[in-house]
Amino acid sequence: MSATAFELIKKDPGSAARLGSLTTTHGKIDTPIFMPVGTQATVKAMTPEELVEVGSQIILANTYHLYLRPGHELIQRLGGLHAFMHWDRPILTDSGGFQVFSLGELRKISEEGVRFRSHIDGSSHFISPEVSIAIQESLGADIAMCFDECPPYPAEYSYVQKSLELTTRWALRCKTAHRRPDQALFGIVQGGMHPELRRESARQLTEIGFDGYALGGLSVGEEKGVMHEMMHACSEILPEDQPRYIMGIGAPEDLIEGIYAGFDMFDCVMPTRNARNGALFTSFGRINIKAAIYAEDLSPIDPACGCYVCRNYSRAYLRHLYRSNEILASRLNSWHNLQYYLDLMAQARLAIAQGRFTEFRSEFLAKRKK
Amino acid sequence: MSATAFELIKKDPGSAARLGSLTTTHGKIDTPIFMPVGTQATVKAMTPEELVEVGSQIILANTYHLYLRPGHELIQRLGGLHAFMHWDRPILTDSGGFQVFSLGELRKISEEGVRFRSHIDGSSHFISPEVSIAIQESLGADIAMCFDECPPYPAEYSYVQKSLELTTRWALRCKTAHRRPDQALFGIVQGGMHPELRRESARQLTEIGFDGYALGGLSVGEEKGVMHEMMHACSEILPEDQPRYIMGIGAPEDLIEGIYAGFDMFDCVMPTRNARNGALFTSFGRINIKAAIYAEDLSPIDPACGCYVCRNYSRAYLRHLYRSNEILASRLNSWHNLQYYLDLMAQARLAIAQGRFTEFRSEFLAKRKK
Repeated sequence: MSATAFELIKKDPGSAARLGSLTTTHGKIDTPIFMPVGTQATVKAMTPEELVEVGSQIILANTYHLYLRPGHELIQRLGGLHAFMHWDRPILTDSGGFQVFSLGELRKISEEGVRFRSHIDGSSHFISPEVSIAIQESLGADIAMCFDECPPYPAEYSYVQKSLELTTRWALRCKTAHRRPDQALFGIVQGGMHPELRRESARQLTEIGFDGYALGGLSVGEEKGVMHEMMHACSEILPEDQPRYIMGIGAPEDLIEGIYAGFDMFDCVMPTRNARNGALFTSFGRINIKAAIYAEDLSPIDPACGCYVCRNYSRAYLRHLYRSNEILASRLNSWHNLQYYLDLMAQARLAIAQGRFTEFRSEFLAKRKK
Repeated sequence: MSATAFELIKKDPGSAARLGSLTTTHGKIDTPIFMPVGTQATVKAMTPEELVEVGSQIILANTYHLYLRPGHELIQRLGGLHAFMHWDRPILTDSGGFQVFSLGELRKISEEGVRFRSHIDGSSHFISPEVSIAIQESLGADIAMCFDECPPYPAEYSYVQKSLELTTRWALRCKTAHRRPDQALFGIVQGGMHPELRRESARQLTEIGFDGYALGGLSVGEEKGVMHEMMHACSEILPEDQPRYIMGIGAPEDLIEGIYAGFDMFDCVMPTRNARNGALFTSFGRINIKAAIYAEDLSPIDPACGCYVCRNYSRAYLRHLYRSNEILASRLNSWHNLQYYLDLMAQARLAIAQGRFTEFRSEFLAKRKK
């Protein structure tokens, strides 16, 4: 009995794109969907009500960060992550694998798990597949992820092969350890930038059997073409009747490519992080609000956008807020960028529903090349 | 013809406290009122809609800051401050006098005005009474303030006497320079910590005649008792049929004392600045949300408060956000503190309306001493 149920509503006639619906303990999600990232139990600069207003249906939280601060046991004692952060819709937690991998010199990998030092205070910690599952069960997300090893890039073929086999053994340990009946568990496909290793990883994981499957270890420095090749290589192997998720991706064009390749779920810090740096997404490409040309520009960020920010504030004011280092700059910029990402997903779903996703993708890419 | 009309609705039988209504170009204000400070054309961490939700009726903006960045002429070209910052209720601008005074070594005062260096880039500037009025007319606030000299504290009696006379001459120049028929102009009473000089300043200004009167130069290091003595000394001299404002004050108990002394308007960065440092106002005194005792505390900041924050978030979560240096911490803390200040004003107005302000004040002070 799975804690999630995936319904495949429609397949695009000209591509692998698909329209779906994923039912979780905290509600239904329309796919394809983008998940805003709430690293420390908050999507930076946004309230839960604002997340709903921009169309968020599910958010992601980081196991590594919440384990270190305030601690998963504290969150469990206080009623779990949903209650703690005042968000009653679905949550997905990552496994901590990617964050621990990102620590570089601060971590040491063994068959048993990963020993690492906290980026906050240097204290020593150990996360194994079993520990990762225990943390995620304490947090109480609707969807938990298997603890995986993310190989560096570039890496030797033989290293990547051994790494994906370790990830498979860890995935099996995760499945064995996992107990919560109200929480789904997704496997993570690794295999670096080698299509045959990606396919091998996907085969091994589907053999174990999970509620859904994710691609991990992308956007680690590879070229866009390579990233897209990995998406297509895995999509063919992954079961059609289960949700497919690409982790940590990405730019709007990567999301469109992921959907084209048959993926349903995405997450990335890009919309919120870029927002805090003044980089804004629009229907005609990216702009940076710092630029002097916006000093007296009374138009909204994007005249085609209907969000709260575009309805009420000029580029001139947003530039002033950014230059003055005001908190409202981060707020309004994050709000607009998340609206852009969620609107893009809604447009993609509509295009699939209308059987014209291939056309939608071509138009989207053409507009951005101008 | 004044751009504001003050109606004195009721006087408290046991004190100088008064209930009033001030009509401005952008609407009516119930007095006594607290004005959140929007230094750089934004009340830090808050949207205009949130300011309305907590009960803000008028906000203050800083002439000095907006003159330097983005520039008052730019704001005027873009339609004025209200349109620029998406706030259609009343605005009061200070004159820049206090900010320039605060620059210390960076400014030089003469009969003509003040030469100073920008705190942003060190560039040289000159503000006279005429320049201050021109800037405030460009910004387009409902209420402008006279350009004043704020003497240091402590200061020699003779210095303060000369200073208040300079402030009077500057006030006359401000009144002569002021042109906008839709903007009121308030005078600023100086006189340091000498009651007789305060009274002399008030007499000189009321002789010139303004739309309202403010006390400047308080909360500059003097003891609370001295500050309160100055309030009472001036209140007696200022015309009863015009609004009275104490600038840059203060702590909740100072607002209550100001109302008790017969003042109607207040502004201070305290609620928002304290919020960003984790210091929160409650009906039982101040708390600091950093404290370890709140780590697992599921209660709201103040069980007696009905604000958005107290309805939806626990002290434990707010502590986590603060320790994690999250933007949402500044947002939620500012929201609650402003709600506290605006609620306190609403309670004070109700108490005056019911003829029991003296009792209300005693109860308020008793609760805070516990």
